[in-house]
Amino acid sequence: MATEIAARLEAELARAAFVDPHSHIDPHAPAARSLSDILGYHYYTELVHSAGVPRNSIEGAGLSAEARVANIVAGLGALTNTIQYAWLMEIARDLFGFTADHLTSSNWHDLERRVRERTATPGWADSVLRSSRMEAVFLTNDFDDPLEGFDTATYVPCLRVDELVFHLGKPGVLERLATSSGVGVTDIASLHAGLAATAQRFVRRGARAAAISLPPDFRPQRVEPGVAGRAFEDIRRHGTQASAESRGVMAADLFWTVAECCDEQRIPFDLMIGVRRSIYSCGVYQGQDLLDGRLSLAEYAPLFNAFPRVAFPVSVLSQPLNHELVSYAWIFPNVYPFGHWWYANTPSSIERDLEQRIEAVPRTKLLGYYSDMYKLEFGYPKFAMYRRVLAKVLAGRFVEERGWSEEQALSLGLDLLVNNTRRVFYSAGEPAADS
Amino acid sequence: MATEIAARLEAELARAAFVDPHSHIDPHAPAARSLSDILGYHYYTELVHSAGVPRNSIEGAGLSAEARVANIVAGLGALTNTIQYAWLMEIARDLFGFTADHLTSSNWHDLERRVRERTATPGWADSVLRSSRMEAVFLTNDFDDPLEGFDTATYVPCLRVDELVFHLGKPGVLERLATSSGVGVTDIASLHAGLAATAQRFVRRGARAAAISLPPDFRPQRVEPGVAGRAFEDIRRHGTQASAESRGVMAADLFWTVAECCDEQRIPFDLMIGVRRSIYSCGVYQGQDLLDGRLSLAEYAPLFNAFPRVAFPVSVLSQPLNHELVSYAWIFPNVYPFGHWWYANTPSSIERDLEQRIEAVPRTKLLGYYSDMYKLEFGYPKFAMYRRVLAKVLAGRFVEERGWSEEQALSLGLDLLVNNTRRVFYSAGEPAADS
Amino acid sequence: MATEIAARLEAELARAAFVDPHSHIDPHAPAARSLSDILGYHYYTELVHSAGVPRNSIEGAGLSAEARVANIVAGLGALTNTIQYAWLMEIARDLFGFTADHLTSSNWHDLERRVRERTATPGWADSVLRSSRMEAVFLTNDFDDPLEGFDTATYVPCLRVDELVFHLGKPGVLERLATSSGVGVTDIASLHAGLAATAQRFVRRGARAAAISLPPDFRPQRVEPGVAGRAFEDIRRHGTQASAESRGVMAADLFWTVAECCDEQRIPFDLMIGVRRSIYSCGVYQGQDLLDGRLSLAEYAPLFNAFPRVAFPVSVLSQPLNHELVSYAWIFPNVYPFGHWWYANTPSSIERDLEQRIEAVPRTKLLGYYSDMYKLEFGYPKFAMYRRVLAKVLAGRFVEERGWSEEQALSLGLDLLVNNTRRVFYSAGEPAADS
Repeated sequence: MATEIAARLEAELARAAFVDPHSHIDPHAPAARSLSDILGYHYYTELVHSAGVPRNSIEGAGLSAEARVANIVAGLGALTNTIQYAWLMEIARDLFGFTADHLTSSNWHDLERRVRERTATPGWADSVLRSSRMEAVFLTNDFDDPLEGFDTATYVPCLRVDELVFHLGKPGVLERLATSSGVGVTDIASLHAGLAATAQRFVRRGARAAAISLPPDFRPQRVEPGVAGRAFEDIRRHGTQASAESRGVMAADLFWTVAECCDEQRIPFDLMIGVRRSIYSCGVYQGQDLLDGRLSLAEYAPLFNAFPRVAFPVSVLSQPLNHELVSYAWIFPNVYPFGHWWYANTPSSIERDLEQRIEAVPRTKLLGYYSDMYKLEFGYPKFAMYRRVLAKVLAGRFVEERGWSEEQALSLGLDLLVNNTRRVFYSAGEPAADS
Repeated sequence: MATEIAARLEAELARAAFVDPHSHIDPHAPAARSLSDILGYHYYTELVHSAGVPRNSIEGAGLSAEARVANIVAGLGALTNTIQYAWLMEIARDLFGFTADHLTSSNWHDLERRVRERTATPGWADSVLRSSRMEAVFLTNDFDDPLEGFDTATYVPCLRVDELVFHLGKPGVLERLATSSGVGVTDIASLHAGLAATAQRFVRRGARAAAISLPPDFRPQRVEPGVAGRAFEDIRRHGTQASAESRGVMAADLFWTVAECCDEQRIPFDLMIGVRRSIYSCGVYQGQDLLDGRLSLAEYAPLFNAFPRVAFPVSVLSQPLNHELVSYAWIFPNVYPFGHWWYANTPSSIERDLEQRIEAVPRTKLLGYYSDMYKLEFGYPKFAMYRRVLAKVLAGRFVEERGWSEEQALSLGLDLLVNNTRRVFYSAGEPAADS
Repeated sequence: MATEIAARLEAELARAAFVDPHSHIDPHAPAARSLSDILGYHYYTELVHSAGVPRNSIEGAGLSAEARVANIVAGLGALTNTIQYAWLMEIARDLFGFTADHLTSSNWHDLERRVRERTATPGWADSVLRSSRMEAVFLTNDFDDPLEGFDTATYVPCLRVDELVFHLGKPGVLERLATSSGVGVTDIASLHAGLAATAQRFVRRGARAAAISLPPDFRPQRVEPGVAGRAFEDIRRHGTQASAESRGVMAADLFWTVAECCDEQRIPFDLMIGVRRSIYSCGVYQGQDLLDGRLSLAEYAPLFNAFPRVAFPVSVLSQPLNHELVSYAWIFPNVYPFGHWWYANTPSSIERDLEQRIEAVPRTKLLGYYSDMYKLEFGYPKFAMYRRVLAKVLAGRFVEERGWSEEQALSLGLDLLVNNTRRVFYSAGEPAADS
């Protein structure tokens, strides 16, 4: 019974068009062009590597795309249980008409041919968007991205600030900031001005959010200008050789300044909390980062308190932290639970996290899901997975246990899938709360 | 099938009278008198604020009760998914005969009228107790509460010690202790004597527990008398300006002394672990506190070891800590999992926590639920919610998966709902274990 | 429907023979000889103690086996809800033909008689292995165990190193190492040589793994030989009175050296992470240890990075850490989620942990379950419990939700129950990954 209700709700949810509020799509090459583009997604490379395929069979100099694909496919047998493999087969079947039950060494050339042919047809990217019911996709743009040459209504810019905040001392970063912002960066004041100009440029070009990923030991705090100035001097002179203290102070100061820019520009600031970079340094590309659950959102209270007008869509990488996220979103008007990120983006984790969120956080604040994808094709199975879990939770927790009608449950589901993303990211200027 | 078994078990559980072992009821005004009393529960004020209603529309000088209710009601549309809204509608329907599906700006005057009329009838509080099947309700009493003028068999005193333990230096606290205990508090020895006299007075007046809520960084430990004495001197002289160290030492010493009093008086000491106060300082009244999961019950082992005769009903605020709570209750004879507290008091969190507890902790030690309510009416939907989850877990995990009869499952459910509370809190003097 | 699918899958899984990759079986007395052997399992002694039976009624000088059993049985009424009690009744019924619904003071002599009679029959241990479908059982052997007098194909040695790593300074340990390894241990180099000789002796005698349990604050790291040498000198001279620093350095150095030995010998190194010993020092034997969830697997990254050829089957004691375990096994080729340990070894915790693992970690890496048992009889109900949960997850998450055939689901289940244990522990010499 609950199963049938869920199936009906899923079908209804699947009719709704929506915005994907976070991805890594390249607007100049949004869709895959080959099977290599699809199997090159880090989920496949890292999982076949985890299952025993050597790194140099997956990537590295001298490896042909053909060999790379063959080696990854040869490793897929170990992954047939994973949800990531299910995404792959759903793409193969529904977007490319591939009908075999599994992708194997003896049939991948057929899928490769299909991918090359279909993705070469005019309007392929748009047709994927239509198949997926996506109206728009948020991007992840470097601070000096010119944001030119694409339709920013469909591919919505988002100012990603990790590089500026954490790697200001790397060769070229300051110069790129000066050039792209048009601000000569010579001291802390002009550094802040350069950042403000960057945010302004982004918003003028249609950006609807800033975003950052944060390590578990990051501590948001306002930095005194004098302290920040000395740290900047150290970094300007010594680059990546500046002291750890200077780099820490600089990161805190720049992070805080980005929040100020979001406040001025009235855009949300997406926080993706808890990633430890390069934990497995011999891993494949993008398969080296992990998590560390030893943190509390209590550390972010100074930020949430200081910027009541900034909406903070928050993702946590450690699944047990979902309960804190629920609680902080329950209390702080400007904290929004945001999707299901990376290692927590699998059905059973989504189900648990969603159940806690949907029974305790106002329905207007639940930013249901984002794809985090690099190629458009992945929006199709990822959102389908999310809708399945959402429909299951709505059917079980609301229709069955709380006696809701299916119409009421559907309406709640659409808040998570469609409406809240629209309202939170498209109402720039409207404060989260005036208390 | 499991659904039908659960429905039958829920109906049977609902026939049982029980004691609510923790609330914030004022015995002189136990029930609501108006809709404002009901909507003033922090769950509604904090959640509508979280959803965007400004604080000064909810509380503050010059706001009429009428305007306050109207503003909160206007915000309820954003909360219809929350379990707290479900409590509200269950109260409105079952206790006040309100039949609309939702509480809105156009119909709240009807509910307001119903609440005023019914709550003004003689014996309303008793009728709520009867409707809810509550035989007695534990209170939360300040250390200097005279405990006079009410029936302590129905409204059972409980000595709440947060103020003494953590705020001894606040103006008036020491004087109130001296006055209420009849002990002239001049040094550490007389301070301890004042506390002992207070505990004794409470127990003579029918108190059945002491209770405290604790921040995540609290570390129980015995303090040497000399060290405690010096800290007390600092606090006596400098009040809230005493050093952080003195205040920390004083809190540890007084906490330990309360445990000694519980040992002497043979009453349980309720520990509610993990709250960070005033995290969101601009939040509404009672909607400013949050949690921080970075703690371990290992820090409480010295306490559990030192007081084997004291029963410690333990609540944790961070849901992931439930697994530690289960494990500590599994090993320590004097540790009892106690209800489902605050941010963990929602159906899916209760279900997960209960499932872990009920399969691993002796059935005699599971203190199922308490209301934590401020007005009697909330005991009705809260315990109903708990019974629904309990019935679901009994049906699924015991009848279906383990082949228990429904009678056996019901008997287990009654241990959690009824029997254990009776035995643990009403057998003062009986040791938890003599090892 | 899912229930029926699960029942069919469970029946199929129950036909498969498997290896139990971790236990505490004594190969010279593998099976119980009396009811006391069964009820002496720490789960029963600690749980009846937790429920109020005094320690001196359970163990201690002068207590007859009869009195001990009577006292434990008298406490069982408080545990009928626990899964551990369900194990006991399943053993009583299926292995000993005991038909009463409960074990009570009035019927335990019947079970006691049955246990004595049946366990005294020739070939009892083998018949338990057959009933349980166990082909082999891994042991937990002290470093100086002669490993003689039993069939190491059935009772597979495993080098347990806790004592060497953490208690090298205890009287007799160094001498026992010297004697058993044949290496005169006089300095850090010969200490390492003694360890290497021990590992070599174990592997020659059929050992297929090394294993250790680790406290939550342990930090794997390579130690400089000079530093290790000075720590060893301190320990050699002062034994358990050596400085805490020396003992910490020594533990880190020896742990790292064991990993080197596993690399040389091509055997897995089982890590059982997160136990705090003797937290409840007045508890019953083996009922004094608990957990502390304040750790991250990030601390183990240096180890996983340094030994890419060593397979690390990892168990975590704190249930919330399962998500980190899943994530680390998803990325690191040499990290394998290993069973469901101790306080996390109950059905609802297994179900949650298994759901997260089975949807995200390659199917070839999931080491499903081990018994951790002290007497063979417990393998029967424990693996039965695991198969029930496994069948439920396969039925719900794969057959129902993902449309798998039951044959496909069964095949996946057999990877966890049978195949992976065989491959990971029986392919000594095969690297986990050559990156």
